[in-house]
Amino acid sequence: MRPSARAPAELRPIRITRQFTKHAEGSVLVEFGDTRVLCTASVEERVPPFLKGKGRGWVTAEYGMLPRATHTRMQREASRGRQDGRTMEIQRLIGRALRAVMDLEALGERTITLDCDVIQADGGTRTAAITGSFVALADAMRYLVGKKSVKKSPLHGQVASVSVGIYRGVPVLDLDYAEDSEAETDMNVVMNDAGAFIEIQGTAEGHAFRMEELQAMLALARSGIEDLLRKQRDALGLVG
Amino acid sequence: MRPSARAPAELRPIRITRQFTKHAEGSVLVEFGDTRVLCTASVEERVPPFLKGKGRGWVTAEYGMLPRATHTRMQREASRGRQDGRTMEIQRLIGRALRAVMDLEALGERTITLDCDVIQADGGTRTAAITGSFVALADAMRYLVGKKSVKKSPLHGQVASVSVGIYRGVPVLDLDYAEDSEAETDMNVVMNDAGAFIEIQGTAEGHAFRMEELQAMLALARSGIEDLLRKQRDALGLVG
Amino acid sequence: MRPSARAPAELRPIRITRQFTKHAEGSVLVEFGDTRVLCTASVEERVPPFLKGKGRGWVTAEYGMLPRATHTRMQREASRGRQDGRTMEIQRLIGRALRAVMDLEALGERTITLDCDVIQADGGTRTAAITGSFVALADAMRYLVGKKSVKKSPLHGQVASVSVGIYRGVPVLDLDYAEDSEAETDMNVVMNDAGAFIEIQGTAEGHAFRMEELQAMLALARSGIEDLLRKQRDALGLVG
Amino acid sequence: MRPSARAPAELRPIRITRQFTKHAEGSVLVEFGDTRVLCTASVEERVPPFLKGKGRGWVTAEYGMLPRATHTRMQREASRGRQDGRTMEIQRLIGRALRAVMDLEALGERTITLDCDVIQADGGTRTAAITGSFVALADAMRYLVGKKSVKKSPLHGQVASVSVGIYRGVPVLDLDYAEDSEAETDMNVVMNDAGAFIEIQGTAEGHAFRMEELQAMLALARSGIEDLLRKQRDALGLVG
Amino acid sequence: MRPSARAPAELRPIRITRQFTKHAEGSVLVEFGDTRVLCTASVEERVPPFLKGKGRGWVTAEYGMLPRATHTRMQREASRGRQDGRTMEIQRLIGRALRAVMDLEALGERTITLDCDVIQADGGTRTAAITGSFVALADAMRYLVGKKSVKKSPLHGQVASVSVGIYRGVPVLDLDYAEDSEAETDMNVVMNDAGAFIEIQGTAEGHAFRMEELQAMLALARSGIEDLLRKQRDALGLVG
Amino acid sequence: MRPSARAPAELRPIRITRQFTKHAEGSVLVEFGDTRVLCTASVEERVPPFLKGKGRGWVTAEYGMLPRATHTRMQREASRGRQDGRTMEIQRLIGRALRAVMDLEALGERTITLDCDVIQADGGTRTAAITGSFVALADAMRYLVGKKSVKKSPLHGQVASVSVGIYRGVPVLDLDYAEDSEAETDMNVVMNDAGAFIEIQGTAEGHAFRMEELQAMLALARSGIEDLLRKQRDALGLVG
Repeated sequence: MRPSARAPAELRPIRITRQFTKHAEGSVLVEFGDTRVLCTASVEERVPPFLKGKGRGWVTAEYGMLPRATHTRMQREASRGRQDGRTMEIQRLIGRALRAVMDLEALGERTITLDCDVIQADGGTRTAAITGSFVALADAMRYLVGKKSVKKSPLHGQVASVSVGIYRGVPVLDLDYAEDSEAETDMNVVMNDAGAFIEIQGTAEGHAFRMEELQAMLALARSGIEDLLRKQRDALGLVG
Repeated sequence: MRPSARAPAELRPIRITRQFTKHAEGSVLVEFGDTRVLCTASVEERVPPFLKGKGRGWVTAEYGMLPRATHTRMQREASRGRQDGRTMEIQRLIGRALRAVMDLEALGERTITLDCDVIQADGGTRTAAITGSFVALADAMRYLVGKKSVKKSPLHGQVASVSVGIYRGVPVLDLDYAEDSEAETDMNVVMNDAGAFIEIQGTAEGHAFRMEELQAMLALARSGIEDLLRKQRDALGLVG
Repeated sequence: MRPSARAPAELRPIRITRQFTKHAEGSVLVEFGDTRVLCTASVEERVPPFLKGKGRGWVTAEYGMLPRATHTRMQREASRGRQDGRTMEIQRLIGRALRAVMDLEALGERTITLDCDVIQADGGTRTAAITGSFVALADAMRYLVGKKSVKKSPLHGQVASVSVGIYRGVPVLDLDYAEDSEAETDMNVVMNDAGAFIEIQGTAEGHAFRMEELQAMLALARSGIEDLLRKQRDALGLVG
Repeated sequence: MRPSARAPAELRPIRITRQFTKHAEGSVLVEFGDTRVLCTASVEERVPPFLKGKGRGWVTAEYGMLPRATHTRMQREASRGRQDGRTMEIQRLIGRALRAVMDLEALGERTITLDCDVIQADGGTRTAAITGSFVALADAMRYLVGKKSVKKSPLHGQVASVSVGIYRGVPVLDLDYAEDSEAETDMNVVMNDAGAFIEIQGTAEGHAFRMEELQAMLALARSGIEDLLRKQRDALGLVG
Repeated sequence: MRPSARAPAELRPIRITRQFTKHAEGSVLVEFGDTRVLCTASVEERVPPFLKGKGRGWVTAEYGMLPRATHTRMQREASRGRQDGRTMEIQRLIGRALRAVMDLEALGERTITLDCDVIQADGGTRTAAITGSFVALADAMRYLVGKKSVKKSPLHGQVASVSVGIYRGVPVLDLDYAEDSEAETDMNVVMNDAGAFIEIQGTAEGHAFRMEELQAMLALARSGIEDLLRKQRDALGLVG
Repeated sequence: MRPSARAPAELRPIRITRQFTKHAEGSVLVEFGDTRVLCTASVEERVPPFLKGKGRGWVTAEYGMLPRATHTRMQREASRGRQDGRTMEIQRLIGRALRAVMDLEALGERTITLDCDVIQADGGTRTAAITGSFVALADAMRYLVGKKSVKKSPLHGQVASVSVGIYRGVPVLDLDYAEDSEAETDMNVVMNDAGAFIEIQGTAEGHAFRMEELQAMLALARSGIEDLLRKQRDALGLVG
């Protein structure tokens, strides 16, 4: 029995709110249950030094948690003077996930920065961030199409992410904090809308996981991500 | 004529939403027009080193802006590795303002940290932060009273803040970004519910301001703050 | 009765020594009683990135305290690896104050940096720094006029600063450390030679201050600053 | 055809040299072909703050590259003043992998730090680091058994790691730099001697990978890791 | 011919002013010609962690340059966020030199910090800093004797320092900036009042120096230091 | 009697292994007894900003210790976020020593960086680093000659270094850790193959050293360095 009384293959209630703030070219509040992440996509007409003059753009991400997004207050990274290893790991993951569905040549010499700020944390913040960032990125691409900076959206696919794990011996989908803090294994899966993998990160927290457990988790992830991809399309008003 | 078509002595629409997030002992979303600041109050059973063993508590504040709270994206302070001078100035101001209405002895050896994170910026983020933080602090004190950690709330007054300035030669109340970026003088005023000053910070951006301009701004501030104090009481369900 | 036996409206002995060191274009030791601050003005033929190519110059300030300028030794900011909030607040204030009397277009693409280093602290270091920096800046402008880099001094006015406060219930001028550490209210005022305000920063340390206390402090500040402006002119050999 | 002319399922020549340096309790030079990593295990009779007084020990890892371990010189992290995201990601991975085979209660209040310093890089430095660190850790445990600090080794299993990937469409084992820089997919797998997974980290660099490619890579990884576990036992003089 | 028209074995005019500032237990302005360094000695009733509970004291030094002590403005180390290699080298040297004449057991569990801040630089700042710091340290020891914290001064000797070099082929004493920036060899020598060496740091800037040049420089240093030791005694009112 | 049973004027066994790693243009493992330092020379076709467009090159050095090169583990400088004073002092020394035998004009607009990483420390790491770096630098110059980037090697001499000290009252050559930690005086000497001094750094750890002790140490250093220069030539296959 899951703490939330969900079935093993059941996602939390998912909400995707576009235009949550007014300045960013894409601004999405994504909610996976009580996990709330604000994802903004900012367009800048410049590229990082290693891309200068190559005719290609870049997509990158930054991740942060408000200090009291969590049960107990965490020290603010800005006041501590550096981002910790977990933050860096997550923002690198988000960036890679989104670049996997973007045609950087078609983007032109621009940088899109996805800022993923966790307003409230209840497990799965990185998977929510990826799922919400895709929608923010799609909106930013519509903005560029709208002002004719690009002919058509340089996005060539959709990307979404969900966590799976082994909770009390049972493979479950989309772990919340109560499950996550107790799970034996935790895996984050990123897939595209062709059903292929962009990233798999699985960690045994308690005992190591066997091949059949891995297969069960992958199956759960695939079905959960299909659902998330559908919700992204709904949010963007796409048929399908 | 103000860009927002407001009268000179008119505040923007003010909204104060309590319990905006679930983990913090006080959590308030405060809105001054399009300026939105999330203020959380966190209670910790410890004091900073300089207060250890003195039987007194502490109230402090931290301030941050989400990178895309603004028209153009600002670099994330956590990734730059330090908070800039403006951030430090503001968080010191918020902390002083709230300590001015708190009986730190009655609080006992506890620290209350107000985290003020700007979700969307449109001028006046520091005055909104002070005004909203008071409500979050009041909620945190109710929480302490509720669990009998203190007998009654250690707050001995209310505090609120508003900006005033000279815009195109006219003294105006509660400047938004369009006015602020063009104002000749900008002053932030913090007052308590006894009508006394806790802080005045006035800066001539363009020409220096004369004594009579100062007096006009102070009068505007006083009336605006009275209004804000009333809205705080309404939000907290207090008569008065 | 003030600890120094001064009358409420009496400044400490003020001394302004020009050419205190030999390398800087302006170098002034300013003394407000036992408070001694070395203010140097350095001319550099470059502007910060945000001003490049705009035909305008910049005036900025940095502030520091020697570790044993104070009663007990403070940690050196250079060894701690960062400037604290108070330092940043002060150097931003000094910079704003001086820019208020400078025609940055007439200065041309140059940066003037005022370094204000406190040799000995006894209260009022920031107001001494502003008052002394103006003289150092005037000397640096004379240097530029002398080498014909500018036709005439781009300074269009004078600026000076003093602190006022409520000490044991009485409004007093130019607080020394003994008063400052005990004052109920502390206000720093910056004015120009037209009698207009450039900056007001008042903070209630103990109880909040009432409107009539504010008015009394402003009157004291105005008369003190008039005196300081006269001493600046004397030091610079100006008639008037 | 692989650049090294290896068969798809063939490891590079593996060498494990114990007691490579004299001060550390465990000191192993591990070589996966031209990749050379020095892994030292240091025993310290203290635990990090979060474990104080809990009767449990800790195993942690740090990772570094000598600046010219690579084709072109990289800036030294110590002189740049911070470790980058990749370094943090890798050292967190190594630490988790080794803790997965360690009984931290049996270790007692001690910290074992694995320092993994890359002397020469040619792909797969993190997998070599994990594989070599296990041997260094085993030596450090023998040291503790030898001085009777623990009754028997707190290790309850073996751990090793290898990379797999899709190179020019073919699943291959243990990628060297020439392959890695061109691979479409790169996956690092960490397993124990029971054949279960401790960590899987797979990233699509080029196109996303399909389920059957994932299965082929997992099979390669399993067989490569079995081989590495055998080499660890040989190096440690264990039967089997 | 030296730029200053001094004879090769001639020191610059040396001035040692005690009680230059009022808060420090020892406060000395030392001048070697135009080089001016403020040396303060601060007594603190604590020792660094590595000495806790050992019944011994510590003497340490910090060194800084005011940004415009030099011909062109140098960036403030506090704003840059770190001390550079030269600063660290110098403050380590000053600390070692003073510890060489101090009985740390007799000092008891106290730390004396020498802050050496260069007000104006014209070559030889580190040798002036050592020479002046000794006098500040002696004053701080008198302060401790005066309040009966120690029975007698824990100083068991005097220490002074001077630079020597090869300027245009000629060995010279006490180089000023004009010589220093052009010298082929530059050597800083620290000696005690028994005529023995505490530190020698010689660097060939241009061509390497031969044994006979070294001997000539050592002889110059010895005679210069004898002179400086005498001036220290004069300043301290010692017969000698 | 020395702990190692060496005669006072006897070096430890010296080994110089070229091409220790494969990527660097020069890569030398130098061993002074149990002290082992990896010195790599990296050629980069750029110069630091202060040399841009001047037609001259630069030689610089960086120094690091692996965390467990020493008896007890030292914190990694990269994780602590800064290099300490000792590291900076040493890398500045190595850079100066090598520049003393290099014709920077003949090198052209290139930077050679010597990375000296201590694999195992047993005293004298900086002298080993200088001695080994010279060989790595010579190899890098051969590489430049080989690809015709320079006509002939810009090296105009050899440089080597050794430590000398007073151990239990006796002047000794090439101190190991057991001697170094107990020596009364420790001096590092850098000389060229013309028998002239490039650098002398002598520090009295216990009592100050007298002139005759200095002379004895200098004589030992000279003979030791002659030996080291010969071993460098042997390693480089030079006659002589």
